[in-house]
Amino acid sequence: MNPYAKDFPILDQQVNGNPLVYLDSAATSQKPFQVIEAVENYYKTMNSNVHRGVHTLGSRATDAYEGAREKVRRFIHAGSTREIIFNRGTTTGLNLIASSYARDNLKEGDEIIISPSEHHSNLIPWQQVAKKTGATLKYFELEPDGTLDHAKAKAAITDRTKLVAIAHVSNVLGTVFPVKELASWVHAKGGVIVVDAAQSVPHMKVDVQDLDCDFLAFSGHKMAGPTGIGVLYGKESLLNAMEPIEFGGEMIDTVELYDSDWKELPWKFEGGTPIIAGAVGLGAAIDYLESVGMDTIDAHDRHLARYAMERMEEIEGIQIYGPRENRTGLVTFNLDSVHPHDLATVLDAEGIAVRAGHHCCQPLMRWLEVTATARASFYLYNNESDIDRLVAGLRKTKEYFGHVFG
Amino acid sequence: MNPYAKDFPILDQQVNGNPLVYLDSAATSQKPFQVIEAVENYYKTMNSNVHRGVHTLGSRATDAYEGAREKVRRFIHAGSTREIIFNRGTTTGLNLIASSYARDNLKEGDEIIISPSEHHSNLIPWQQVAKKTGATLKYFELEPDGTLDHAKAKAAITDRTKLVAIAHVSNVLGTVFPVKELASWVHAKGGVIVVDAAQSVPHMKVDVQDLDCDFLAFSGHKMAGPTGIGVLYGKESLLNAMEPIEFGGEMIDTVELYDSDWKELPWKFEGGTPIIAGAVGLGAAIDYLESVGMDTIDAHDRHLARYAMERMEEIEGIQIYGPRENRTGLVTFNLDSVHPHDLATVLDAEGIAVRAGHHCCQPLMRWLEVTATARASFYLYNNESDIDRLVAGLRKTKEYFGHVFG
Repeated sequence: MNPYAKDFPILDQQVNGNPLVYLDSAATSQKPFQVIEAVENYYKTMNSNVHRGVHTLGSRATDAYEGAREKVRRFIHAGSTREIIFNRGTTTGLNLIASSYARDNLKEGDEIIISPSEHHSNLIPWQQVAKKTGATLKYFELEPDGTLDHAKAKAAITDRTKLVAIAHVSNVLGTVFPVKELASWVHAKGGVIVVDAAQSVPHMKVDVQDLDCDFLAFSGHKMAGPTGIGVLYGKESLLNAMEPIEFGGEMIDTVELYDSDWKELPWKFEGGTPIIAGAVGLGAAIDYLESVGMDTIDAHDRHLARYAMERMEEIEGIQIYGPRENRTGLVTFNLDSVHPHDLATVLDAEGIAVRAGHHCCQPLMRWLEVTATARASFYLYNNESDIDRLVAGLRKTKEYFGHVFG
Repeated sequence: MNPYAKDFPILDQQVNGNPLVYLDSAATSQKPFQVIEAVENYYKTMNSNVHRGVHTLGSRATDAYEGAREKVRRFIHAGSTREIIFNRGTTTGLNLIASSYARDNLKEGDEIIISPSEHHSNLIPWQQVAKKTGATLKYFELEPDGTLDHAKAKAAITDRTKLVAIAHVSNVLGTVFPVKELASWVHAKGGVIVVDAAQSVPHMKVDVQDLDCDFLAFSGHKMAGPTGIGVLYGKESLLNAMEPIEFGGEMIDTVELYDSDWKELPWKFEGGTPIIAGAVGLGAAIDYLESVGMDTIDAHDRHLARYAMERMEEIEGIQIYGPRENRTGLVTFNLDSVHPHDLATVLDAEGIAVRAGHHCCQPLMRWLEVTATARASFYLYNNESDIDRLVAGLRKTKEYFGHVFG
């Protein structure tokens, strides 16, 4: 029995007559009772609007909200809380960079480089920037195992490269992309790097100063936190020079009838009543993950991926995508000619939750020459017996469709 | 004892040695245990990402999320769930209309008309539209009591008026603005009306088809729901013609390397993992408010405002802002030369939470010829004895500052 599973109340249930095995944490993670209770406690003891009030509840809520910001700062080792912007999630963070920084700084002749493995949230915003600014969108070349060749990637970055946007970890391939190296190469050419850290921050130590990334976005709900809260990290000098794209309460300094100016960082980018309970819950999630230890989680998730690949490769007709080495805790695969949706449906009847589809990565699906895949993704509450259940389920699926089609 | 107060666990506490009297619901409302438990239950039984999955938790979460959308549709009497977009709050909704609809449809020579009483979230976005499109921003003239003269307002709307944006209820004055009439006048000239309903939807029956408004935005946290969830209603024909401003997962149909197209309504405007638990909590809040009855809440809140004004006017040196008739459950005021922050601080020592400041309405403060005001705002969990406590607190404040300054 995994020692952490007991903290996650949702896992203690039967699905379709079988104990639930949740293998979809790359889509969203489950929440420990410590996080659920932190949200409940917020609403039961201190709920109030923040910053604006002089009453006691208002002070408590403000302290909790800004305290969560400091937890995030420490967790990713940012230099200042001015560099930590709370928002709705990774997608919102990446879109802010695209709609503000990129639209205001890029022009015809400039180039944006991304990977064909990007999630749509780190791909479509750059298509839009290219359309609006006249800049050119380019793609790194992926090696057959879904990694970047360092020499080729470095050579692709030229004086025209104003922005590189890349996932720290691919949500389909599990590839850990060389963000630190990419940052040094693009900085040498005068450009910036934007990191989609939705799949890395929940699973490994991420140090934004060590990576020297310019912007980095992630979501609370994939790291044991609530839905609807995310973080954008940005270097203070860059954020300072950027215009907000959402205007309203909380983000202003003075408002005249025909003109206004903005508060200092980070509030300039937090118009409207913030996602207060979400931030408080994210702070509790960070406390929880730190109590386990990010290195422990990282090693655990990678071990499960290796174990899963070993066990799954015993099954004839299985195709696993992505690199064998330096990958995180997820395995994306297909089994014979069984459609991944059918596969996931059979597994669900066994109480096993995996994802099936394009995983918001249609260009990557084409690169893999498939229309869809199945994906099993792991987190601290999973263990080897979950993977044994998955493998048994896959064998059952194969048998079932063998009879149907055989 | 108010029969509903017992549903709100936060109210059962002492603040600074006195029972809490919470009079700041216009900033954010408190949450009944039914809402807190709905969020908890979501995380404990069905948390999963929505739409993408074929597993059981994914279906449960999707049903809960889309079920909440149907509750919202029914609550505001929209014609279709395609017209109900979940987002972070009122500010996000108003900014979407400004950044998409208004920027794409307005041009030099066109006019936008708003009221000087608008919240910054329904004011700065239109300043920005004016700057970006060359359209002219104009203001309705407010009568001395903070209402609109119908004949003057109608005359202000001309063939050049492409957009009117107005709060249904002023968060400072309590004025109920004539949205239905304004809609008919602006439609007659070929323009559209955008309604900031942050202060109306929580407190009264709002029927978007009866109002015939084109867009209407509100927030969950002011109506007994969670923080970080809001709703934008828009007429289907208008939303269909609009471009999204946030791009990513969940909002796409097909994604090619250099181009993409979008899903149908409402998901086109919901890029990224949605605020799932927030929507579920908002659904529970709607169930709760409907179990009390919106007409009951409306009558209750208005009664408390009338009672508060009567009692407060017994205090010499009090100045109350806004109309005496047809106003909702809030009273904005100043007391002699006591700064509202000092006043709120003294009241806080008595356990009474009121707001002090510009209430995100700096232009309105100038129109009132004050730098700040205090505001007491009421909701279904308040009662006359809360107001008696407020009045006693105000007398104490007056006495205290009378001694200090006298």
